[in-house]
Amino acid sequence: MEVRVGVVGASGYSGAVAARLLTTHPRFRLAFATSDRYVGEAVDSHLGLPVEGGLRFEPNDAAVQLAATCDAVFLATSAEVSAELAPAVLAKGKHVVDFSGAFRLETAADYARWYGFEHGAPQWLARAHYGLPEIFGGPPKFANEPTLIANPGCYATAAILALAPLVRAGVVEARGIVVDAKSGVTGAGRKATEDYAFNEIDEDLRAYKLLTHQHTPEIARALGRVADGVKGLTFTPHLLPIRRGLLATCYARPVAGVLPYDIERKLAEAYAGRSFIQVCPADRVRLHRVVGTNHARIGAAANGDVVVVVCAIDNLVKGAAGQAVQNLNLLYGYDEWLGLSQMQRMAP
Amino acid sequence: MEVRVGVVGASGYSGAVAARLLTTHPRFRLAFATSDRYVGEAVDSHLGLPVEGGLRFEPNDAAVQLAATCDAVFLATSAEVSAELAPAVLAKGKHVVDFSGAFRLETAADYARWYGFEHGAPQWLARAHYGLPEIFGGPPKFANEPTLIANPGCYATAAILALAPLVRAGVVEARGIVVDAKSGVTGAGRKATEDYAFNEIDEDLRAYKLLTHQHTPEIARALGRVADGVKGLTFTPHLLPIRRGLLATCYARPVAGVLPYDIERKLAEAYAGRSFIQVCPADRVRLHRVVGTNHARIGAAANGDVVVVVCAIDNLVKGAAGQAVQNLNLLYGYDEWLGLSQMQRMAP
Amino acid sequence: MEVRVGVVGASGYSGAVAARLLTTHPRFRLAFATSDRYVGEAVDSHLGLPVEGGLRFEPNDAAVQLAATCDAVFLATSAEVSAELAPAVLAKGKHVVDFSGAFRLETAADYARWYGFEHGAPQWLARAHYGLPEIFGGPPKFANEPTLIANPGCYATAAILALAPLVRAGVVEARGIVVDAKSGVTGAGRKATEDYAFNEIDEDLRAYKLLTHQHTPEIARALGRVADGVKGLTFTPHLLPIRRGLLATCYARPVAGVLPYDIERKLAEAYAGRSFIQVCPADRVRLHRVVGTNHARIGAAANGDVVVVVCAIDNLVKGAAGQAVQNLNLLYGYDEWLGLSQMQRMAP
Amino acid sequence: MEVRVGVVGASGYSGAVAARLLTTHPRFRLAFATSDRYVGEAVDSHLGLPVEGGLRFEPNDAAVQLAATCDAVFLATSAEVSAELAPAVLAKGKHVVDFSGAFRLETAADYARWYGFEHGAPQWLARAHYGLPEIFGGPPKFANEPTLIANPGCYATAAILALAPLVRAGVVEARGIVVDAKSGVTGAGRKATEDYAFNEIDEDLRAYKLLTHQHTPEIARALGRVADGVKGLTFTPHLLPIRRGLLATCYARPVAGVLPYDIERKLAEAYAGRSFIQVCPADRVRLHRVVGTNHARIGAAANGDVVVVVCAIDNLVKGAAGQAVQNLNLLYGYDEWLGLSQMQRMAP
Repeated sequence: MEVRVGVVGASGYSGAVAARLLTTHPRFRLAFATSDRYVGEAVDSHLGLPVEGGLRFEPNDAAVQLAATCDAVFLATSAEVSAELAPAVLAKGKHVVDFSGAFRLETAADYARWYGFEHGAPQWLARAHYGLPEIFGGPPKFANEPTLIANPGCYATAAILALAPLVRAGVVEARGIVVDAKSGVTGAGRKATEDYAFNEIDEDLRAYKLLTHQHTPEIARALGRVADGVKGLTFTPHLLPIRRGLLATCYARPVAGVLPYDIERKLAEAYAGRSFIQVCPADRVRLHRVVGTNHARIGAAANGDVVVVVCAIDNLVKGAAGQAVQNLNLLYGYDEWLGLSQMQRMAP
Repeated sequence: MEVRVGVVGASGYSGAVAARLLTTHPRFRLAFATSDRYVGEAVDSHLGLPVEGGLRFEPNDAAVQLAATCDAVFLATSAEVSAELAPAVLAKGKHVVDFSGAFRLETAADYARWYGFEHGAPQWLARAHYGLPEIFGGPPKFANEPTLIANPGCYATAAILALAPLVRAGVVEARGIVVDAKSGVTGAGRKATEDYAFNEIDEDLRAYKLLTHQHTPEIARALGRVADGVKGLTFTPHLLPIRRGLLATCYARPVAGVLPYDIERKLAEAYAGRSFIQVCPADRVRLHRVVGTNHARIGAAANGDVVVVVCAIDNLVKGAAGQAVQNLNLLYGYDEWLGLSQMQRMAP
Repeated sequence: MEVRVGVVGASGYSGAVAARLLTTHPRFRLAFATSDRYVGEAVDSHLGLPVEGGLRFEPNDAAVQLAATCDAVFLATSAEVSAELAPAVLAKGKHVVDFSGAFRLETAADYARWYGFEHGAPQWLARAHYGLPEIFGGPPKFANEPTLIANPGCYATAAILALAPLVRAGVVEARGIVVDAKSGVTGAGRKATEDYAFNEIDEDLRAYKLLTHQHTPEIARALGRVADGVKGLTFTPHLLPIRRGLLATCYARPVAGVLPYDIERKLAEAYAGRSFIQVCPADRVRLHRVVGTNHARIGAAANGDVVVVVCAIDNLVKGAAGQAVQNLNLLYGYDEWLGLSQMQRMAP
Repeated sequence: MEVRVGVVGASGYSGAVAARLLTTHPRFRLAFATSDRYVGEAVDSHLGLPVEGGLRFEPNDAAVQLAATCDAVFLATSAEVSAELAPAVLAKGKHVVDFSGAFRLETAADYARWYGFEHGAPQWLARAHYGLPEIFGGPPKFANEPTLIANPGCYATAAILALAPLVRAGVVEARGIVVDAKSGVTGAGRKATEDYAFNEIDEDLRAYKLLTHQHTPEIARALGRVADGVKGLTFTPHLLPIRRGLLATCYARPVAGVLPYDIERKLAEAYAGRSFIQVCPADRVRLHRVVGTNHARIGAAANGDVVVVVCAIDNLVKGAAGQAVQNLNLLYGYDEWLGLSQMQRMAP
């Protein structure tokens, strides 16, 4: 059986990675790809890979119509667009994996506050599956009805992978957690503004959206599902002068009596047997080991006052397109690593 | 009057910047420069600047003898070497500005623990002036006896500038502060190891020395001088794929009732009229604005749970050589900005 | 005497460097600065330097009017704008140093072909002084009438410095010269297009404008002034993933009987005693030695078939703003290095 | 049938890429991997890929003995080591693909001059197959006796792909060709010297080994096989501040009467139907399109005086490990793209 998957927004960075992964996947097939800029051009030339069937880019606004011709759709679109497209595609009876934040928060009010738009399909918020398999399991297998998977945000993926096992195990306090994260520039998507010009980014570093970034409630909500008492979570993103890769350095207070050894053991136990998570010493957690792959590396250090957990991922893979494929694998009952295990890291 | 200043270790990164600043300073004069690798070569060619007197690099082990010929000495040497050299230079009746950590901590035991060597001159620890003028003032002006200035560490400079005014004003709690800092690679000095090879650093990020970095007690000690109750300070350094620049993102808990406005006001008040500190919105704190200068930019964001303060400096200037010149200016009764106000930033 | 100089286009990269150099120059004074984006904002905050008189950015279209209040004007504007502004400023009796290519070529037809616009002031083409002092000398000192200095292009500066002494001395053939040049991204100016986005430039390299770049006729014209028979000059620019710095690798055929030694000697002789040119072994010509300064480093290698000359400059300094100050120094009879000799290089 | 292939020097950059390609290849199997630093450690962890059989790194000096257990060996070793190892492995009846220059030149004297060592197996020089399939075809298929494939150098690959079709077709002159090439730092291999430290390379550019680089005779020899009269070839390598990617900008004189159109047509014809070569407009030849793949992009511009051909490759893939796999594919009668067509490019 071959699963036909379309990508809406395939000329953006994560959409293009998703299209490439579908092209080389043994069970999935890239059924269509839409773009705002390449309409009519050959997809293979843009992906740099042989694509079956002489596929050409379709316009973005053909997305719902094209969805009817396939089994599932990846939405690599903005939250506002996804909030509108996803219900329309689901209404055609097709699965959706949404790369945006449109279905990750709890209430319509959250969207007004954190995303600044009026959510048009709040009824789907409770029905969306939050697709972080290592923490929340996969979506229901072989679903009879169309499934909506909210693919986690890149920052949220790293922070939750670092913290959830410890919060869940009760070895750190759920209050007052700090997530200091640093991401490559592809995390901001394809941009033609001066802020993202080479001369402005190269050899620079800055924090942005302090205390207002929309991944804050996403992380808090996920941690709140595994433990009580999550409160006062602080998240600060920074823009690194690199293209790909994301490192989250997370700070929590150990519960009284917990030893550094307990921290390491809880992480190791949580991820034992998982395909994509390596628990290792904290100073061996680095972007070079994960960029180009669907892996996360996680390491911790602790003393009586603090637990520091560091997690590295590729923001476009485990933080977006790779995790989407992983989720779709699980939805169709495949091994989660299918089509992902042979990805080669980019360093050097 | 011209003050004659020698630089020991002038072929390292901060030593070379110091030598350049002395060369272009209106009142100081580069009296000698020692090096482990350029002995006998012309100093001007290495600095890329005209240097008076046809100065050539001297061997490092001539440092004490050369010190006798000048008024003050910059030690751009390792802590272990400085611990030995500084007392010898002071014994010659000369002022010392030490770039290393050798005289920043309180007790010999601190050195055994954090630096891993036996301190040979613990009697100087209490006599050293910790040279962060914006927080602790300058050294005693026109000192009659030889003065030892412990020039602050680069990470410590950024963290203390960000936090000390708030801790001192009692608007944040002194317990449980987190400093997440990111530095360019020159912070590690000139290295010929594979870890610091271009291919290993470019497009990478990693945390290092988690919970064990020697600037931790330095920051804690400085904050402890301005407020009681400093405890459980956590510091995590990260290695950025850039050459120069350091950003510290600092997290503290606001004291009950403190408003975001109070935080901004305390920072603004603390640095009103200071030559080198700009308080600005937190998302305008970026390396590009400070690299190549002796400036620090500081900005804060706050809510009921947390105060985040971001501080950016050039690790080789305000974090090392520039601050050394600033300290020497103050020691000799000059304006602190003399020879520093015309430095031009490096971006773009 | 203090010379009052205005900068039109001071928010662009080379305009900002020019404004900084004027601010720190012992004899020149920044009289006004215009900008397309910062009108009304304080100039000192944008330059990161103390500026006398509380100067604020003026609108670009006030340029001619403001020119009346000062002695000379730097035009850091596009060629098309400069072609219009320069005559208007000169008509006010003020000197002009034009950073653009508007007055570097010979005929109006050249502008139609290489720049794609109709030149409105062709009568000034023959009267403009091409400001490459090391090759063509300075402008006439103490000029009684307003002088127009065409400040050379960045690529042209490096290529001409590398080649002119050899072409002039007749040791290489004037035909068939190849200039393969590589520039940092600031050479393209401040851009808000996707082509110059960080993600598109970082870790990339590409050639552009092959056989059509407008510096081609500028280089050919300059070499044609020092020797007969210049023909078939080829110039290929490349875009480097760095901000500042430009390296030109130039290839020419040695005249029969010329030895490698002759090449080195001719270069050394040509630049003996010049403030800003270092002739050195070719593999020691690198960007790090010149970026942040007004220096050029030049080195050559040769055998019986070819002469290779490598030249490195900072495209914003010797390739733009620094050379403009050098030219103005000479126009006013000052040492060419005034205000430039203390610039500090940016590496590391 | 499964072909068992060992990699000698698998902890170097090109050796590691080769080991990864063998691991994910549908017909080849990584049979062993030797290393100077990881002996005894698990190969999968270092490659970041699942490797069958719990393979661990073997010491380099077990190479010949291990060779006996497999069908072919990749030598990712220095020229001097390869010159010794290759004959020993061939004597065991095994195929060798040598990544070094040890078997690319014509005579033992060439090695004394360009590589600086005494070649111990000059009898193999004439028997080695120079493995640039697009120009010289594959090695003899299903060879009965052990075959030695000299895998081309990275610079040589780009230069020859750019020039050979034009030289062979007689549309450019064989004399006086200039190759100006720029390579990422992985081209220099894993280095722990200060010259290759991040601080020394970042934001820098320099030419090196002017007129003395060992790829010069390799390029000249290859062009000499496709046309008479090759003479006076000039090659200048430059070190780019990036990790992977190599761009060669090549200059030749057109034969009288040749039109730009002829140049483009000859390139298009030469590479029609080839899996890995894209001929495109010269300003669309950029590293981002090829890095991470076995592809080369080639484009040309021409006028009456000059033909400029630009070629971009990934120095570790088409310039080393990918081409080695391509050669081995051909030796075993497989499609040349087997195991290579699904490689994903690294940008963004």
